[in-house]
Amino acid sequence: MTDQAHMRRAIELAARGRGTTSPNPVVGCVVLDASGQVVGEGFHAYAGGPHAEVVALRAAGERARGGTAYVTLEPCDHTGRTGPCSLALLEAGVARVVVAVSDPNPAAAGGADRLRRHGVAVATGVLTGEAERGNAEWLTSVRLGRPHVTWKYAATLDGRSAAADGTSQWITSPESRADVHRLRGEADAIVAGIGTVLADDPRLTVRRPPAPSAGEDPAPPAGQGAPAARPLLRVVVDSDARTPPAARVLDGRAPTLVAVAADADAGALAARTEVVRLARRRPYGLDLAGLLAELHRRQIVSVLLEGGPTLAGSFLKEGLIDRVVGYLAPALLGAGPAALGPAGVATIAETHRLEFEDVTPTGPDLRLTARPVPLKEL
Amino acid sequence: MTDQAHMRRAIELAARGRGTTSPNPVVGCVVLDASGQVVGEGFHAYAGGPHAEVVALRAAGERARGGTAYVTLEPCDHTGRTGPCSLALLEAGVARVVVAVSDPNPAAAGGADRLRRHGVAVATGVLTGEAERGNAEWLTSVRLGRPHVTWKYAATLDGRSAAADGTSQWITSPESRADVHRLRGEADAIVAGIGTVLADDPRLTVRRPPAPSAGEDPAPPAGQGAPAARPLLRVVVDSDARTPPAARVLDGRAPTLVAVAADADAGALAARTEVVRLARRRPYGLDLAGLLAELHRRQIVSVLLEGGPTLAGSFLKEGLIDRVVGYLAPALLGAGPAALGPAGVATIAETHRLEFEDVTPTGPDLRLTARPVPLKEL
Repeated sequence: MTDQAHMRRAIELAARGRGTTSPNPVVGCVVLDASGQVVGEGFHAYAGGPHAEVVALRAAGERARGGTAYVTLEPCDHTGRTGPCSLALLEAGVARVVVAVSDPNPAAAGGADRLRRHGVAVATGVLTGEAERGNAEWLTSVRLGRPHVTWKYAATLDGRSAAADGTSQWITSPESRADVHRLRGEADAIVAGIGTVLADDPRLTVRRPPAPSAGEDPAPPAGQGAPAARPLLRVVVDSDARTPPAARVLDGRAPTLVAVAADADAGALAARTEVVRLARRRPYGLDLAGLLAELHRRQIVSVLLEGGPTLAGSFLKEGLIDRVVGYLAPALLGAGPAALGPAGVATIAETHRLEFEDVTPTGPDLRLTARPVPLKEL
Repeated sequence: MTDQAHMRRAIELAARGRGTTSPNPVVGCVVLDASGQVVGEGFHAYAGGPHAEVVALRAAGERARGGTAYVTLEPCDHTGRTGPCSLALLEAGVARVVVAVSDPNPAAAGGADRLRRHGVAVATGVLTGEAERGNAEWLTSVRLGRPHVTWKYAATLDGRSAAADGTSQWITSPESRADVHRLRGEADAIVAGIGTVLADDPRLTVRRPPAPSAGEDPAPPAGQGAPAARPLLRVVVDSDARTPPAARVLDGRAPTLVAVAADADAGALAARTEVVRLARRRPYGLDLAGLLAELHRRQIVSVLLEGGPTLAGSFLKEGLIDRVVGYLAPALLGAGPAALGPAGVATIAETHRLEFEDVTPTGPDLRLTARPVPLKEL
């Protein structure tokens, strides 16, 4: 097997941590012995838990000596809640380390250098793009200093999210709706506009949290404890503090943050839940970059933007959408509200261009995943 | 190889006739000798040309005796421009005939019965659904007495066909636009609304006619002559006879039919091209079922409906769309005209439901093919 094949396996392992490692990255590791046999596998399962390298080295034991370690992210060189992985690799006697993505976090970087200084061969750049896609949320957070934003919508083939009279239950299939809960389970926060809260009174919770060992293999690698997933933060963008006291989003099942305008009369709301004040924007709405900065301060790495063509249009206009996930129902309406509202495009040359990353059926529907192009420098 | 495998090959052969057999069906045929070896293949290439069975039997010669013939459509039993295929199969001494779709055309049916009466074993119902999809246009024409209608549209992910200022060149990719020409090449007529003619002044011709042997195999079966494809009929739905004299659609490169209201002042237009008069419909538009009846009288089997959200909405409302082909660009506009106009849906329960039949990338875009459900009884 080649370096690429082992790294692909490490990326698969890393993906098992999706939804439970935040605010940490997902990381996978495969350890070979000196003869090239796989002797250890591991992934980072939850923040505060052992790093992927430590799990894989523990499984390998003495067999790691003289062997090779494949890691999706450069081994950390700092002591956080756990010791530096660079040291663990040196102590295990690994002769070669293959890295997919270099650590962009100044506090943690330097692992590759330390390994090299101690005579370990370090190869970088193996399946970098693939590994970056798997860690897009965390990399966006570290590189841009704001959470990664996924806009999720559901629409008919003609781009409508409801019929002319506003009815919309259900445009998409049970399979699509279940998939939305999977998306929510991978996010740290869900953001919705007040329009959606008033119209649909959504709960914005996760119906089915993802299992920690979710993945194609039935048995997780040894040494992975149960993850301590953070509760999903619910965020309502509500310039004029109109969220009703009885709104389901204030039901206490999960923390809720309501973003209001600096001049809004939010006294009653503040008595019920946490309120953050932001500058107003013209012609409507709030300072969304400011909202994301506030979420970043709270260690929110990934945001799922749901509900509200107006809010989605504003995020898009500000260049604050990193991924689009659309559930497309094989249906036609011909009238009714559009899935996306004004996004700052007046003429065709200003179109927001994306590229498809994935197309997967969800029951009778199609789930389309796309990212803006030219791809943002992560 | 099984009956299904041979029939699948016959369906592949039949597809080579797409776009050139109208008003005849596409038909494919595979002949085995008594030992089960393939000894002849054929397809119907153009109206007036030899039928698939005749081509395949000619290739097989004496080896067909005691063998099996796989035919995608029940062998005809009447003498049209060619003799009955049932007779050709009897004369060739074929012992068994396997049929995918029974002939719904009363004038041609009876082939299976005649074969049985003469001691030939006849099996039906093999890959019927697949073969019906390949012949959907012709079957619609025979069963419903009107042409099969494919609505083609191009849109962004949010269902818009142009930006807010009306600009739309080019939402979709060169690959998608080339694919539209393939679709046109398979149709007998293109229908557009006057709105599209006035806005875009389209030519509505085929840039690249399909090659007669288009298909996966480099060499066509022996005995297939060059097809005599009919010129594509251009149809403009133009209630008030507003098509400008200088419109490209009147350029004489292909025949053009303009459908106007019974009370329209169409004298000038009638001097330039053929005009058909239809009843007006409320709140706008013309009697589209009447238009399709007129096209059926002209032996138009398949129509490609292009351009015009209003016209498309009217066809959909009347239940006159059999297939939807959407070219979806990975782009977002947030404003601008919708790809589909009013289609008689006021509330979500009235949604026009379809099912996806195919999803294929065309360059950076996606081509989605869907059909209405519950599937019309063809």
